[in-house]
Amino acid sequence: MRTPAQNAHLALLLEVASTPKPGNVDRHRDLADLRFEHFLAGAVGAQRGLEMAADGAAIGPAFERAVAGMAEQEGDNTQFGALLLLTPLVRAAATDLSQPVVESLVEETTVADAAAFYRAFEHVDVHVADPPADMAPLDVRRGSDAIPALEKRGLTLVDVMEQSVPGDDVAREWVTGFERSFAAAEQLADADGPLPDRAATVFLSLLADRPDTLVATRRGEDVAREVTDRAAELAAQDAISTDRDAVEAFADELVERGINPGTTADITAAALFIALESELVSI
Amino acid sequence: MRTPAQNAHLALLLEVASTPKPGNVDRHRDLADLRFEHFLAGAVGAQRGLEMAADGAAIGPAFERAVAGMAEQEGDNTQFGALLLLTPLVRAAATDLSQPVVESLVEETTVADAAAFYRAFEHVDVHVADPPADMAPLDVRRGSDAIPALEKRGLTLVDVMEQSVPGDDVAREWVTGFERSFAAAEQLADADGPLPDRAATVFLSLLADRPDTLVATRRGEDVAREVTDRAAELAAQDAISTDRDAVEAFADELVERGINPGTTADITAAALFIALESELVSI
Repeated sequence: MRTPAQNAHLALLLEVASTPKPGNVDRHRDLADLRFEHFLAGAVGAQRGLEMAADGAAIGPAFERAVAGMAEQEGDNTQFGALLLLTPLVRAAATDLSQPVVESLVEETTVADAAAFYRAFEHVDVHVADPPADMAPLDVRRGSDAIPALEKRGLTLVDVMEQSVPGDDVAREWVTGFERSFAAAEQLADADGPLPDRAATVFLSLLADRPDTLVATRRGEDVAREVTDRAAELAAQDAISTDRDAVEAFADELVERGINPGTTADITAAALFIALESELVSI
Repeated sequence: MRTPAQNAHLALLLEVASTPKPGNVDRHRDLADLRFEHFLAGAVGAQRGLEMAADGAAIGPAFERAVAGMAEQEGDNTQFGALLLLTPLVRAAATDLSQPVVESLVEETTVADAAAFYRAFEHVDVHVADPPADMAPLDVRRGSDAIPALEKRGLTLVDVMEQSVPGDDVAREWVTGFERSFAAAEQLADADGPLPDRAATVFLSLLADRPDTLVATRRGEDVAREVTDRAAELAAQDAISTDRDAVEAFADELVERGINPGTTADITAAALFIALESELVSI
């Protein structure tokens, strides 16, 4: 019987092993300086923080610990966004893994949780959008230098997430009761075949559902929209089952163009955790 | 900073991710009913037992716990032999990861450790050779039914390993101070490129070095010898670097023929642990 922390850890491993996941590192693809083994080491390093969350620690410190451990490998950022989703979900699983419970947990986050979240950015190089002018003092890239401004405004971690929507679909999960993560877990349960194949199908449908916000941040809205339109065409014909070569070709093309829908991979990892922990799927 | 248990866990993940590893599940190959994701889940499940060893628990019970957790996935036996090597190595790392320390630890194993080892066979289906007639009461496949005979003869776990040599090169490591595992760790340090590529090179040279005992048990000495001769030809020309396609073709052929040099993969996992824990390699 796996613990919630072990299921979260396994979800991170299954996410990176699932293929094809267009634009992302997967079982069959590496990026230039970010390779499969970096994700394996990142998942192992994240574990202590995930265990803290499962043991009832506050979400911010547990997340910071998970990120600090994840960052102890040479590929830099591998699973920051996935851990930002998994930490409250694992914390919820300590009582009950449901949307109402995780919603109330994120509502209860404090300024101290927000401060820990800012400190987490000092461990890794995360791609984020420039904040609006009035939020410049709270640019996450300032790390702990932003904490005084955070405390002055009395912003909790969920407040920070609200500020990040739109433009960050990981933050959006925090303010929508993790709706896409829970819905994707149901899709994993309904799909056929080995779990990594199901995860590839769910990844494609998530990518078809909304433009990836990491792609929008790094490459612009038009590229993000193009990628989603292409994914939608493939998802509409259930291409993972009916024309896998087309999805493989799309995956190779995105890797070549350096287009990385990382937010969609983060939500896929969250869905894998929910599905494993709720025993919607087995392995 | 990874703990010894985390390095052992990462070693299991890196071993299965390393490719090509002829005849074994690797990043690019699955067997019929034994897939990549089963090894990921097996490695996650083994962790508590590895932590017990790192915390100074007796080797037998820690091993049994690791196997029980490993077996909680649908692929049955994934890493039994690797855990039989990793458990004493992780236990040694709690003080000092060196050949003299691990040798003295295995010398100190007890009848209770042997009993736990026998109980471990009840969690998974492990391929082993028929024992000699006088050892039939101690056939490991009898599981805990063999424990009274074990206690009557006063056999410790290292005694049981001595009885298993020749015919089991995992047991051979136990009675030779883990010489191939430590030597292979040095080879990992001396090789070039990403760690999974180094592990593939070391796997091939281990396979070239001695016929795989799991292949000999399941398919006969002649097949084991043929596989080693083929591996020796490829290793002699450093084929992983100079003619990778030839190694990939050999890997595909062994998978098709159902020839699985699992003992060689076990020793590769042990070498990865030693190299990570001793900081001979980084990731």
